[in-house]
Order: sequence, then structure tokens, then C-alpha cells
Amino acid sequence: MKSLMRANVFHGVNDIRVEEVPRPHPGFVEAVIRVTLTTICGTDLHILRGEYPVRPGLIIGHEPVGVIDELGPGVIGYKVGDRVLVGAITPCGQCCGCLSGHPSQCGHGEGYEAVGGWRFGNTINGAQAEFLLVPYAQANLAKIPDELSDEQVVLLADIASTGFGGAESGGVRIGDAVVVFAQGPIGLCATAGAKLMGASLVIGVDGDDRRLAMARRMGADVVIDFRSSDAVAEVLRLTGGVDVAVEALGTQDTFQSALRCLRPGGTLSSLGVYSGKVQMPYQAFAAGLGDHRIATTLCPGGKERMRRLMAMVRSGRFNPLPLITHRYSLDNIKEAYELFGERQDGVMKIAICP
Amino acid sequence: MKSLMRANVFHGVNDIRVEEVPRPHPGFVEAVIRVTLTTICGTDLHILRGEYPVRPGLIIGHEPVGVIDELGPGVIGYKVGDRVLVGAITPCGQCCGCLSGHPSQCGHGEGYEAVGGWRFGNTINGAQAEFLLVPYAQANLAKIPDELSDEQVVLLADIASTGFGGAESGGVRIGDAVVVFAQGPIGLCATAGAKLMGASLVIGVDGDDRRLAMARRMGADVVIDFRSSDAVAEVLRLTGGVDVAVEALGTQDTFQSALRCLRPGGTLSSLGVYSGKVQMPYQAFAAGLGDHRIATTLCPGGKERMRRLMAMVRSGRFNPLPLITHRYSLDNIKEAYELFGERQDGVMKIAICP
Amino acid sequence: MKSLMRANVFHGVNDIRVEEVPRPHPGFVEAVIRVTLTTICGTDLHILRGEYPVRPGLIIGHEPVGVIDELGPGVIGYKVGDRVLVGAITPCGQCCGCLSGHPSQCGHGEGYEAVGGWRFGNTINGAQAEFLLVPYAQANLAKIPDELSDEQVVLLADIASTGFGGAESGGVRIGDAVVVFAQGPIGLCATAGAKLMGASLVIGVDGDDRRLAMARRMGADVVIDFRSSDAVAEVLRLTGGVDVAVEALGTQDTFQSALRCLRPGGTLSSLGVYSGKVQMPYQAFAAGLGDHRIATTLCPGGKERMRRLMAMVRSGRFNPLPLITHRYSLDNIKEAYELFGERQDGVMKIAICP
Amino acid sequence: MKSLMRANVFHGVNDIRVEEVPRPHPGFVEAVIRVTLTTICGTDLHILRGEYPVRPGLIIGHEPVGVIDELGPGVIGYKVGDRVLVGAITPCGQCCGCLSGHPSQCGHGEGYEAVGGWRFGNTINGAQAEFLLVPYAQANLAKIPDELSDEQVVLLADIASTGFGGAESGGVRIGDAVVVFAQGPIGLCATAGAKLMGASLVIGVDGDDRRLAMARRMGADVVIDFRSSDAVAEVLRLTGGVDVAVEALGTQDTFQSALRCLRPGGTLSSLGVYSGKVQMPYQAFAAGLGDHRIATTLCPGGKERMRRLMAMVRSGRFNPLPLITHRYSLDNIKEAYELFGERQDGVMKIAICP
Repeated sequence: MKSLMRANVFHGVNDIRVEEVPRPHPGFVEAVIRVTLTTICGTDLHILRGEYPVRPGLIIGHEPVGVIDELGPGVIGYKVGDRVLVGAITPCGQCCGCLSGHPSQCGHGEGYEAVGGWRFGNTINGAQAEFLLVPYAQANLAKIPDELSDEQVVLLADIASTGFGGAESGGVRIGDAVVVFAQGPIGLCATAGAKLMGASLVIGVDGDDRRLAMARRMGADVVIDFRSSDAVAEVLRLTGGVDVAVEALGTQDTFQSALRCLRPGGTLSSLGVYSGKVQMPYQAFAAGLGDHRIATTLCPGGKERMRRLMAMVRSGRFNPLPLITHRYSLDNIKEAYELFGERQDGVMKIAICP
Repeated sequence: MKSLMRANVFHGVNDIRVEEVPRPHPGFVEAVIRVTLTTICGTDLHILRGEYPVRPGLIIGHEPVGVIDELGPGVIGYKVGDRVLVGAITPCGQCCGCLSGHPSQCGHGEGYEAVGGWRFGNTINGAQAEFLLVPYAQANLAKIPDELSDEQVVLLADIASTGFGGAESGGVRIGDAVVVFAQGPIGLCATAGAKLMGASLVIGVDGDDRRLAMARRMGADVVIDFRSSDAVAEVLRLTGGVDVAVEALGTQDTFQSALRCLRPGGTLSSLGVYSGKVQMPYQAFAAGLGDHRIATTLCPGGKERMRRLMAMVRSGRFNPLPLITHRYSLDNIKEAYELFGERQDGVMKIAICP
Repeated sequence: MKSLMRANVFHGVNDIRVEEVPRPHPGFVEAVIRVTLTTICGTDLHILRGEYPVRPGLIIGHEPVGVIDELGPGVIGYKVGDRVLVGAITPCGQCCGCLSGHPSQCGHGEGYEAVGGWRFGNTINGAQAEFLLVPYAQANLAKIPDELSDEQVVLLADIASTGFGGAESGGVRIGDAVVVFAQGPIGLCATAGAKLMGASLVIGVDGDDRRLAMARRMGADVVIDFRSSDAVAEVLRLTGGVDVAVEALGTQDTFQSALRCLRPGGTLSSLGVYSGKVQMPYQAFAAGLGDHRIATTLCPGGKERMRRLMAMVRSGRFNPLPLITHRYSLDNIKEAYELFGERQDGVMKIAICP
Repeated sequence: MKSLMRANVFHGVNDIRVEEVPRPHPGFVEAVIRVTLTTICGTDLHILRGEYPVRPGLIIGHEPVGVIDELGPGVIGYKVGDRVLVGAITPCGQCCGCLSGHPSQCGHGEGYEAVGGWRFGNTINGAQAEFLLVPYAQANLAKIPDELSDEQVVLLADIASTGFGGAESGGVRIGDAVVVFAQGPIGLCATAGAKLMGASLVIGVDGDDRRLAMARRMGADVVIDFRSSDAVAEVLRLTGGVDVAVEALGTQDTFQSALRCLRPGGTLSSLGVYSGKVQMPYQAFAAGLGDHRIATTLCPGGKERMRRLMAMVRSGRFNPLPLITHRYSLDNIKEAYELFGERQDGVMKIAICP
């Protein structure tokens, strides 16, 4: 067995390098998977640009598909060779956060580097590598049905789980009108999720032709190009106020627009990661004030979540394949980052094959 | 204006007659609609057969589509000539039941004949007539969008509202496995509703080839013919236990089967109207006991409910047309009752045109 | 029967006058009550000061207790002489807002002056008068049990319904830690409500000794005086982050403090009426971001709500009497406004007897 | 360190013996606690009488308070000597049941003896012993605050968690009327739980004077002795139908009575363990049919649940001490079983001190 592996290591701002690093081995309740497919996420770009700080030397990436290579003795019900999907978030299942139904707020125990369910490529080594150590393996290894390919499931780890989570936190019900601001990969999955939950009308808003076209493909009934029309006015004209507005970008502008689209009693589901303070346009005594809900959602995780999402792909309800627009090998990942960072060639998601 | 109208009047067991009766006029908060389409429901058969007692002289039927003909002065926002759908249940919106979120448990006030949201063809005159008096009109007149035909909306009044309600009371979530026992009109709509809410697998159970075929058309991924296989065993084999089981017939057998299909923590949503006591197979200390929920649902009503359901048809999410298999005039309604009662010719729902 | 009555009429900024005005009479679905007790609300002060505009000539006040004096013929189940409590919000029960479970977002029908459930002393004449016309009377007249005095129920119309609503929208559960920012009348009721719903620890924050003392009386386990300590730091020290934070003032400062007190996954329940934009301190990629909920609540209303709140007083679970610190006659209401506006003499709520 | 310990071992029907057995030692993710207090549960009586089969040689008991004696290396954040409460149910936190929010339906992994969250004294050795091996220790060790005695917390492991769970599954809200059938230890805690959640009226039903007296002490506003009155009729007379009925015995009779007490739209929360089939008295087309919910609850567990319950005792909201009526040493446990089995001397719960 080789003792080294190739991995994409963060060395500093705008400095990532694919290099040989020690291959991990599992502790008692951990597993190591041989990564067969992963991707690049917008968050990885933030890391590369220094906008989200991680420690130098860290392997980045958090969307892993692979095959179990080594298993700690405390992990039961799995065997080496099992194909598995692992969520971007790896809840322990045993802290107060997890036991309260907030796995994405996993608190681990003492002795861990950080608090929060998101650890891969954040506080521990991530998925852009040949091998990946999976913590709390019992809670996080989701066996992949034979019928599903790696490409069919890799986007479930983060993108689909988060996007659907936006529709779920919004509490979409049969007959709802829903608007989704920003049709990047997560917004597109929120669009698909709102439709899957029974919305009668899903409106996708963006300013990019390819994304608007993809929004239709993912289930939007109507798309609005904010370059050529006032999105809020158009949403209000079409619906009189939506039941649920999903914000999937993380800017003051989209947040405020989403809030203004709500009917009295509606819900704003916020998926974006904001890079500063957000103002809520609450005017004094506004007639519409009251009974609004705002829900912020991080990517839900855990093997049961992954199992459910894979069931949606398996039954044909959700097809994530159109979102994978490009494919690169791990050795060429720097090119992939460039393409992704500059949004060239209609890139949506890039599959990385180690 | 004519002072008489034609209507289907219940005179006693197995004795209904289309005859001339006084035409209704609205009180202050009421409306009269000229019925343009209605249907026959299984409950009407129970009435005809004397299994569900109503007073002789009552006009039966509770699925009305029509045009506003006269309006009480207290009904605002409508005008004579508006096309409207009225739910089978007509909540007042102003009693403790309605204000608690249980419109189907509407209690009206003193002076009314009965308690309960269902009044048409039960405690007041119903829809199988040329004209229909709508109580609590402000809460119950749902304007029909121009794009929708009468046939596209008539089944929303009861069948779709109840069937979808079964999926909603079951709390179907993205990724759920759902089984629906009995694929009559309500069960078929529960099948459609479960799929609309995001189930990854919907299993339809029945013993009639045409209904099983229709189940597939309404969204079932798998159908099970209970004549040729053990439905419970087959459901457990496919799913290991469903998240939600919907019972849409009302027999001891289907109730018990539905309960046995549940995973630990699953929900039984019961739509059937039971004609006797129901046994729950709770064995002492059974491992699976615990955390089950059983929800019984009556048809939800009110104009907001109807508006939402019409939005689902308008957007193409739900197409009820295949369920209308036959069409009769009001004058020939006795033939329609015979065909419906004997389940001839693959009948599912019959549209009645006054 | 007299054709005039005395009432407190708004004539312009800082100009209210008790004068003779025409006495109202009910329409078909309305009632007139002889007001036996009412109060002054903080919102009335905003009106008086011109901060919340209403039309000159309007009778203000929205917390009515009285005796039915005249009944429209369409109101059933009541008789002249019945003692009734009417909520500050008077939902119609029959619009899409009401039928969707949002009575405080009542939309009425065409022909009404404004949208929103709050009408008394806002868009129609209010309760600081000898007689009050109650719209949608069927939905809004709550009979007062004989055991309860007017003073025991008058604060339920707005203060307690809103304050409890804050705890309810926060979803307080058995064992929760809750903080309530600002211990004015509504905040004090939120404090009581959080305790009534099973919180294990309720922390009241204010900067006024009498209000902090009253907070303890209403159920706070701990009170924090923000004049002498850093409230957020103290809450975090005591709890490590609360499950629910209630904001009951409506300033940027309290909103932000409440948000910072939440544990990951916690809920901010906002009751304050904000007089400008509110900033949410979302830092980019903050560890605590995610799974927060923010709920804004307006006063819930309707006779069923009032019935439930009266049941709480009747059983001794909640005693609102200590909150009434002063009593005035309608003729002396200007003095009462002065005392209330200047927060003299430890005033909390003032009962007004017409 | 001694290699043996004393424990209460089940040898067969009516044959339990306190004897020396090997002392347990923890695996990687397990802990051993020195038991300082435990109790006898009604379920233990069922085991003793052979009504609930367990394997001979098993140590019984499932309500453990103790001090950590040995810790597996994979358990973090604890140290030997910590005082801990362990729930009767010990969820793994990492199976699909746990990750779906159903810890009491914990499925463990392959290789375990049984499915279900309840393992102590059922499928693995239990708490009536000097030492206890705690599985999934990370999820199940709840540190006891210094202010709380062992007696104050021992009933939280099962009795209070289950009883409160009955009120929680019933969805008790501010202003609800609630009836609890059977005032044994679990019913008494359901009574306390309903009051803690904001019920305006809690009615306790039993046929034993001491239990009725204790029901008042635990928060019942009204008690009904079924020996001298028709409990259902009396409940309906007092309330017109309750919002929530809790069944805490497990007989056909109490189940049916509870169902008959519900208002339309009410919830039956079932805590009893039924020793046969249960009939639901659903009459055909009954007016009250519809919108009922039935929820069955097993004891919720896990350290977060225990933490929350301890917070309720610590703040004085809930005082379980009156429920402990007798105290025995482990060596005299057979006498305790006799007293408990024959319901002598007003026994409610017996504390056992190893």
C-alpha cells in the first residue's frame, strides 16, 4: 500500500498545489475512502482568494464520492469496497446540536479544532485528493445504489442538499408561489426543490442567459432577467406576493429584494453566505409587517439525508447531471479553478476525477 | 326569472328523482350560482342506498362549478357572472373550529341544522341542480381563471382536496417512500399528492386493472395488485417500511395493512370513512410500537384552498381530466348513478351537466 | 336611546379631544358594544405624536371590553347584554389571509379602507368611546366567563395576545432558555408566555428598576439591567446561547442584541415595531450562521384566541392585574395620556373607564 | 479493582436474584458508571412476571444515575468521577432512525442484539447493579449539575421523559384543555408536562385516592375518580371536548375513553403499552370523524433530552421528589419488587441504592 497520495493543498492566498502528501488511515470510528469523484465549490474559491481563511497545508474540497478503502473497527455494517457518498457536512450525531435536530450545527466534543458540522476542507483535510479520512463514519457513509453513477450523486453532497434545504426551510406547500433569487448551482437546486415540494409557480431570477435557461430546465415556470426588468415589481405583478422567497447569493440586494417579494405571512429562506451586515427594510409600522419568517439554512448532512437525496435521483424525480458542465483530472485542477473562478464557457459545476 | 329549477331530489332509499323545485335566492351573506358542472361522489351512493341518512326532500351533490347568478348585499369583491368553484366543505371562517385552523370542523352558529363543514347535499340543498345556494359566500367563492375549463376544476372541490389532504396530513417530505391503499378517485389524488410533495417512491395498491393503470398515470412508481400478491409483504420488501401510508378506502383490512407497512416513526394518514369499529393491531410490547402517528382527514375547503388547487392545474402540475371517464346531463342522472354504483365501463368519475 | 356618545377623537398631532360624536349602529353582520373598559396602548402615543398617521376625526383605542348593546341580524349565538372581549385585531375569517391561518394579515374585501387585521383606532373608529362598532362580529365577540372581571381580561385583547404570540412564534419548548429584550407591557407578557410554554430559564432584560421587578413577578428567573451590565455577554455566560430570544422594543440595538444571544439553530422572535431599517449582523461565514429562524409577529386575534387567553386567566395560570397600574375615566383621558407618555409614577398600563 | 459486582439478575419467571457477576469494562466508545441510584419500573414487573420476555441471565433496570468509573478512549469531554444521568433509551445518534429525529427508534448497526432505542435491561445488562456499561457513551452521558441530588434526577431517565413526551406529542398549546387517563408515575408526569406547556385546564382521571391526590400535586386542576363517575361524560361536560387526551395505561378501555373525549380536530397521545389489539370506535360517518391525530410515543432519550429535563428541575419548574415514596438497598430489592407489584403502602416509585 502506498504511503503517499496526491492532493490539492492550500498554501496561501492564490496558492494551491497538487502534491504528494501522507495518506490517511482511520481511527476506531473513522473510515478512509478512495475518492472517485469530487467537485469545486464556490466556497473553495473564497478560500483560494483568502476571503475565507483556512490553515496553510490543508487539503480543500468537501463533495466526496468514493469507495471504502479502510475501516476503523468501530464502524459496523460496512465493508471495504462499498461505494459511498459522504455529505459536505459530517455530523457526529452525538452532541447536543445533533441530538436537537441541528446536525449542521454539530458541536463535536472537546479536542476538535472547530465547532460546526462543516469540517472537510475547512478544519480537517478535504476531498480534492486520492484518499479522504471520514470522521464519525457510522453517521456519514451512505451506500450508493448500483443503478447510480458517481456523477449522478456527487452534487447531492452539498449543492442539492443545501438547495433543497432552502425550499424545505421555506416550508413550501402544495400551491405555493415561490421565487428564487440567483440561479447558480445552489439556487438552481432550490428551484428544483421548490417544484419537487409542490409549488404551483416557481420563478427564477438571474442576470445570465445560460443560468436562466438552466433554471427552466430545473423546473422554473417563469424566469426573470434582472438586467432587463425590475425583478421585484415583476414578481409582485405575477403573484401579488409570493409564499416563499429563496435568497441564494448572499448580497444585501438579493436579500432585500427577496423580502420585498413576500406576501404578508410569507417566508424568506436565506441560503446565501453574507459578506457583511445585511439591512432589513423594515419601515416603521409598515402594513405588511408581521408574521414574516426568515430562515437561514446550512447544508444538511448525514447518511440518512444522502440516502433520501439519492432516492430522488434513482426515481427520476431529480436529475443533477445537467449541472455538471465540465470534467477535469485532479492533476489539472488549477485549470479547473481558473475556469470556475472566471465563469468561463458557461461553467456550472466541474467534476474532478482524482 | 324562472321561479322553479330542476334538481336531483332524494326521496328515500333507492329513490332519487329529477324534478322541479323552488329556485333559491340568497340571504345577506349568501350567493346563488347557476351550476354549470357537478359530479356524483361515492358518498352520494351511500345516501341513495340509505347507508348515510339524510332528510327526504334534500337535493344531493357537493361538487359545484358555476356562474354567480345572484349575490347577497354583504358579499364583496364578486359580481354576477363570475365563474366560481365552490368547495364540497363550506366553512364559515368565524367559529372556533375555523379560527383554530380546522375549517372542515366548522361549527356554524346556533340556528343551523348540523355541525360540521360538509353541508351541501347533507344538511342543506346540494349541487345536482340548476341553481345552488352558497352559504358563507365570502369564504367560499373561488374565481376560476379564464384558462381553466369547468372539467379541469370540478374534481378539485372534493376529490383532489381530500386526496391531496391525505398526503399533506401524512407530512410527506422530499425522499419519502409512500404507499396508498385503494386507488379509487380519492386514493388516486392521494397518489398524485404524495408525488407532488416530493416522495421518491409512491406505491399504489388496488385490485382493479384499470385503477392500477390510472395509478401509474397519476404518479405511482410501482403498483401492487392485491389479488395476486401480499401487498404488505411486497411494500416491506421494496422499502423496509414506508414513511407514510395513506388509507383511502375505509375498511378494517386496508387500515391494518397500512399500519403494518409503516417504518418505526412513520405516519398513517387515514382518508377512508369507516363503517364500523377499526382494530389497531397493537401487540403488547411490539418492537415497532412507538412514535407512530395516525392522522384522519376530512376534505379541506374554503376559497383559498380552491385557489391553490386551481393554481396546480393551471401550471400543469396536476391534471385531473383523466379521472372524468363519463359525462351525463342532469336529466339522465339516474343512469349515471347506476353506472357509477355498479362500477361499469371503467367508470372513475362522472361529470353531470345541469 | 341617545343618538350621541362621548369619545376620544384624534384631531391632529398632539390634539385629541373627548367630545360628543354620533353613536354607531350595527350593519347586518356587525355589533355595537357599550364599552365598559379599555386602555391606552403605546401605539396610541405614536398616533398622538404623529409618528403613525391616521385620519383626523378618528376615535382611537383598540382594547375593548363591553356589553353587547345592539346586534346585526346576521350575528348568531349572541344576545344583547352579553359581556364580551374583542381582540385588538378583528379578522374577517373569510379572506385568503384568514383562511391561510394568518388572521392578523386579514385582507377584508373591496370597499374597506385598508388591508390588515388591525382596524380599531387605525382605519375605523376605536375603543376609547362609550360605544364601539365591531366588524365581523361573528368572528370577534368572545363571551367573558362570569368569574372574570373586566380588568382581568382587558389586557388580553392586545398586550397578552401579542406577548404570548412572541413566545409561540419562537416555538418555546420544555427546557428552553429564553431571553426577552425590553420589559414593557408586551415584553412582560412575552416573559410570562415563555414561562407558560415550559422554558426552564427566562431572562428579562431592561434598564428600569420597576420593570425589572415586574419581570420577576411575571415569571423571569433572572433579570439583567442593561445600565449596569453587558446584557449579551451576561446571557451568553449564563446559557451559552439561548434557544429563543424575544425582541419587544423595536430598535436596531435590541434586535442585534437578541440575534447575538442565540445558540446555533436558535430562533429570534421579533415583536417590536421598527422605526427604520434594521441591520442584521451577519458576518461573512460566521460560525454561528445557519439554521437561525427569525419570526415577526403581529397581535393574533379572533374570538377563539380571546377564549383561550381568558381560560388561562380563569385557571390562575396568568394574572394580568399587576400590569394595570392606573385607572382613569374617559373624560380625564388626556391626563392619562400625559402620565403614560412621560412614563411617570411607574406606569405600566392604564385602564380607561368610559 | 474488584472484578465482580452485585446485580439483580433475571433467571426466569418470578425468579430474580441479587448475586455476584463480572463487572463490565468499556469498549472504545463506551463508559462504565458506578450506579448510585436507580429505580424499579412497571416494565420490570412485566419482565419478572414473564409478560415481556428477556433472556435469563440479564441484569434488569433502566433508570441509571451514577459516577463515571471508566471511560473508553473514544469518549471525549468527560472524565472519571463525573456525575451523570443516563436515559432509559440510549440512542446511537448515527443510524437512519436517529438521524431522522427518532432516537427512540434507534436501529444501531449490524451485530447488535436488537433494534430499538431501549436496550438497558432489555437486550443488554441494566441498571439494578453496582456498575453499568453505557453504550454510545458520547450521546448518552448527561452531566448532573452540582445543585441537583440523585433523587431529583433519577426519575427523569424514563418516567418524566416519557410523560412529558406524551404532552409534547400531543402538541399541547397555551389555552388547551387536556385530559390524562391513568395517574400512575407516567400519567402523573404527563399531567405535569401538560401544565408546563401551557394548558389552561388539566384533568386527571384515575380510580385510586392517593393517585388522584398526587395528580393535584403534579398540576391537575380537576381530578375525576372513575369509580364514582363516568369520566368521559364528565370531561365532555367540563370542556365540550378536549384539545389533547393522553392515554397512559394501555387498555382498550382507556384508549377508547380518551378518543371519545376529543373535540373535533383534537389529538390523542398514547403512552400506554397495549397488551393486545385496540379497537378504535370509529362509527361510520360520525360527525366528529376527521382531523383527529393519534400519536404514540416511546421514551425520548439522549444526553440533550436529559440536560433539558434537569434544567426544569433545577429551575423549580418540576419537582419529581414526591413521586419517590420508598427507598431500598439493592440487596433488599426483592422486597421492593413485592411492595411495588402489589401496590402496597401507596407506593409510587421506589429508589434503589446499590
